[in-house]
Amino acid sequence: MSGKIFIIGIGPGAEEYLTLKAVNCVKNCDYTVGSARAIDLFRDVKNTIAFNVKDLVDKLEEGVELAVSGNSVAILSTGDPGFSGVLNTVLRISKEKNFSKDKIEVIPGISSLQLAAARNHIQWDNANVMTFHGRENIEDILEVIDNGKITIALPSRKVKDMAQFLLDNGVSENRQVTVCERLSYPDEKIVSTSLKNIATSEFTYMCIMVISSKD
Amino acid sequence: MSGKIFIIGIGPGAEEYLTLKAVNCVKNCDYTVGSARAIDLFRDVKNTIAFNVKDLVDKLEEGVELAVSGNSVAILSTGDPGFSGVLNTVLRISKEKNFSKDKIEVIPGISSLQLAAARNHIQWDNANVMTFHGRENIEDILEVIDNGKITIALPSRKVKDMAQFLLDNGVSENRQVTVCERLSYPDEKIVSTSLKNIATSEFTYMCIMVISSKD
Ligand SMILES: C[S@@+](CC[C@H](N)C(=O)[O-])C[C@H]1O[C@@H](n2cnc3c(N)ncnc32)[C@H](O)[C@@H]1O
Ligand SMILES: C[S@@+](CC[C@H](N)C(=O)[O-])C[C@H]1O[C@@H](n2cnc3c(N)ncnc32)[C@H](O)[C@@H]1O
Repeated sequence: MSGKIFIIGIGPGAEEYLTLKAVNCVKNCDYTVGSARAIDLFRDVKNTIAFNVKDLVDKLEEGVELAVSGNSVAILSTGDPGFSGVLNTVLRISKEKNFSKDKIEVIPGISSLQLAAARNHIQWDNANVMTFHGRENIEDILEVIDNGKITIALPSRKVKDMAQFLLDNGVSENRQVTVCERLSYPDEKIVSTSLKNIATSEFTYMCIMVISSKD
Repeated sequence: MSGKIFIIGIGPGAEEYLTLKAVNCVKNCDYTVGSARAIDLFRDVKNTIAFNVKDLVDKLEEGVELAVSGNSVAILSTGDPGFSGVLNTVLRISKEKNFSKDKIEVIPGISSLQLAAARNHIQWDNANVMTFHGRENIEDILEVIDNGKITIALPSRKVKDMAQFLLDNGVSENRQVTVCERLSYPDEKIVSTSLKNIATSEFTYMCIMVISSKD
């Protein structure tokens, strides 16, 4: 008998952005794997396996093995697992361990991208949506930055370095940028200023950049 | 004294995809404006104003006016209001009625796009995401359809017409397409077949097309 894996999006961070489905699913699963912060969002949870940045893959493997041996396992992802989330990593591990993909259900969550758009009253279907998280394709942003649309970007490096990269590549220092930091947390901060100012400001790594369109 | 407007995403349709925030917000608002189907998802709701396709704008105006005169008003949108949702329409009406945008909060919901990606185990940050809902820019799909990525599209017309358009523009009749119909409803249907077969099949209007990448 083999179990089931649920890859669950937990939203941007605050409990209120959880879906009813995420709450119920965690409640019913034998094991829940996630960051300590993610697990803490759930009041009703059975056995937990917390990971940190260093042992992420080990713990995901442990989770998949528990499913292979018949347990139901919830794997928690920030935001939406399908938007720069753990989805592909879990799929790869499941394949290696011969866990059938028919027994994997993905439960979407509210992406930080969506909350960044919401805070700024933006329709993101008409924006350039780019994630550079864990990628090195940062030049791709130059292909769209002047196409007349707003750009929403999850930076791969520090926000200031990303801003400097844009300045170095000819984007005007007066381009308006809104940095959305720690969305949905009590210390959420939203700063709107010029690209030039952003390039000399410090932010934590939990940021989304909303870059205005070229006029 | 002026009230507040909450533009709330209700997810793809089933109650379980509501966020806790959506549930609480509707519970506390004086008025809730939405389709009958959307309003029905909430067990705890005060005054309701239901709209249909024909009187949508009238009812949204009524909602905004109630906010102008001091009420808290929830406006419900399928999926995420910021993804082909009512966001821009509500912003326009609010501006016309001089309702301050600082008193408008957008609460994201799970987009049908996200559930389509989840069902197919796709990371949508690496897909071509296109919505043609209420737009006539259907040719735009031709620019990306062969770029090596999966395309997820909300069609503007019937699925079969969209498929025929692709065939007429040189996309191979063997291209694999997955149509995701009525996601999250009890009669959800997911069909994977060739573009050729899709072009002769009937679907309801509540569909998302997931088109495989060109090999
Ligand atoms: C590994 S990615 C995960 C994205 C996630 N799957 C999602 O859909 O939001 C982590 C990045 O997401 C962004 N992020 C996640 N949560 C955030 C929050 N609460 N506020 C701002 N940015 C956030 C930051 O850019 C961060 O570096
Ligand atoms: C006006 S758009 C609204 C999109 C919505 N804001 C969202 O984020 O999902 C309506 C289109 O969304 C898609 N859609 C909405 N709900 C759906 C569902 N449950 N299953 C499949 N497609 C759906 C269909 O393509 C439909 O024509």
